[in-house]
Amino acid sequence: MPRRNDELRGPDELRSLVEERLEELRLWPQLHGQAESVRYSLLVGGKRVRPVICLATAEAVGARPELALPAGCALELVHTFSLVHDDLPALDADDERRGRPSTWKQYGEAVGILAGDALLAEAFRLATSYDTPEIARELSEATLGMIGGQYLDITGTAPDEATLHKLKTGCLFAASVGLGLWAAGVPEAEQAPWRGFGDELGLLFQIVDDILDGDGYVVTHGVDGARALADEAADRARDRLAAIGAVTSVLREIVDDLAVRTA
Amino acid sequence: MPRRNDELRGPDELRSLVEERLEELRLWPQLHGQAESVRYSLLVGGKRVRPVICLATAEAVGARPELALPAGCALELVHTFSLVHDDLPALDADDERRGRPSTWKQYGEAVGILAGDALLAEAFRLATSYDTPEIARELSEATLGMIGGQYLDITGTAPDEATLHKLKTGCLFAASVGLGLWAAGVPEAEQAPWRGFGDELGLLFQIVDDILDGDGYVVTHGVDGARALADEAADRARDRLAAIGAVTSVLREIVDDLAVRTA
Repeated sequence: MPRRNDELRGPDELRSLVEERLEELRLWPQLHGQAESVRYSLLVGGKRVRPVICLATAEAVGARPELALPAGCALELVHTFSLVHDDLPALDADDERRGRPSTWKQYGEAVGILAGDALLAEAFRLATSYDTPEIARELSEATLGMIGGQYLDITGTAPDEATLHKLKTGCLFAASVGLGLWAAGVPEAEQAPWRGFGDELGLLFQIVDDILDGDGYVVTHGVDGARALADEAADRARDRLAAIGAVTSVLREIVDDLAVRTA
Repeated sequence: MPRRNDELRGPDELRSLVEERLEELRLWPQLHGQAESVRYSLLVGGKRVRPVICLATAEAVGARPELALPAGCALELVHTFSLVHDDLPALDADDERRGRPSTWKQYGEAVGILAGDALLAEAFRLATSYDTPEIARELSEATLGMIGGQYLDITGTAPDEATLHKLKTGCLFAASVGLGLWAAGVPEAEQAPWRGFGDELGLLFQIVDDILDGDGYVVTHGVDGARALADEAADRARDRLAAIGAVTSVLREIVDDLAVRTA
């Protein structure tokens, strides 16, 4: 039995679309030399999970995934902005990112700060390339949630782990589904069942991340406990998908991949 | 002779509208404790020049200035974002801002970085509260220009002073006029004469700033030379206004005030 409807492009094809668009991205000319560090941050790699989810969601409701590319790239830019600023000496003080010098380590702290700023502003430029404001609006809300989560994390003031992760990871995952829906023109009234799916996807990603890193959910629930929680989140995500009247086979594949990923 | 059409609200009234809206601003709830530093940065004061220009422009073309308030506040948030990040130790390392501890000095460097990030994301949330994407789009472009200017400044790579100032100051001033036009629903085809006015306004502001601070244009042109350049920019701004078929008396007042300001 084929894993998916033959007419749909699978996760790898969608990822190639995203990579290609990111490489070709024409940054705003007035960035001048600042563009180099933006490009460095963006092209250091990554799984491009958020844009792939965004494109797959648009595809699932019948739109061409290309239509969701600016939204998907905007999500990746916001994600990259958060990494670039998290790596700064005043925050996590990380010298490396994916085996290469982190942006501030490569270009100095000042340019590193500006690189994050520019990534965020470029994300909104991409998100406002649509005719309607909803894509940029949801992206701004998700970004604010992420920043709030980062604040709770560095100040140690999170009420609980679930709240922290929902903000730090969940917001942008939920928006990945949401932006795909807006890009495909799905009216708000029909988005509710999708929103629940987006929430489960973010939770799944976070728990598996903690299993791979040996922190977070592994500390509080042990490896087996965290694994069980991940499997439950994956099951709920699949149930949510199954209840949606759309061609969700590629998204199902993404859930399966996220559940068993090893990197 | 009255300085302005009696039905228009003058700069001080517009400034009060902006102050009131900024004080009442409902920040995104998921910011949690991060909201405090955002509010601190925003309410430390300032002349609110950019939002006042935005509201006055909307008013000049016949719209209620209240309609431009979200756009005006978004401009002030982007301006404040740039100050908060410029003050950071890795950039200008300023301990004080308007006689009070700068944001990073008050809340620490990590929260200071996040405060700037949150101001920028909140600005886009405000800018996307309109039904059309143009306001947020122009704001993103202006923000990118500002960041590019800051890069040229800190790396000493600006081709010339005019380019530097056009980016660091001019972009957001031009956008203050532009966002007022979009908020009032002026179609792009009718915006051209206004755009020239916005450019002169930014230049005027920058030269007077340098005269007050004794740097920039004063270093290259002397005090008298800079004063003459400021007067010429003010004259050109007035000429541009006079050529526009709109009730521009309040904007004319703003030009007069900017030309002679002492703070």
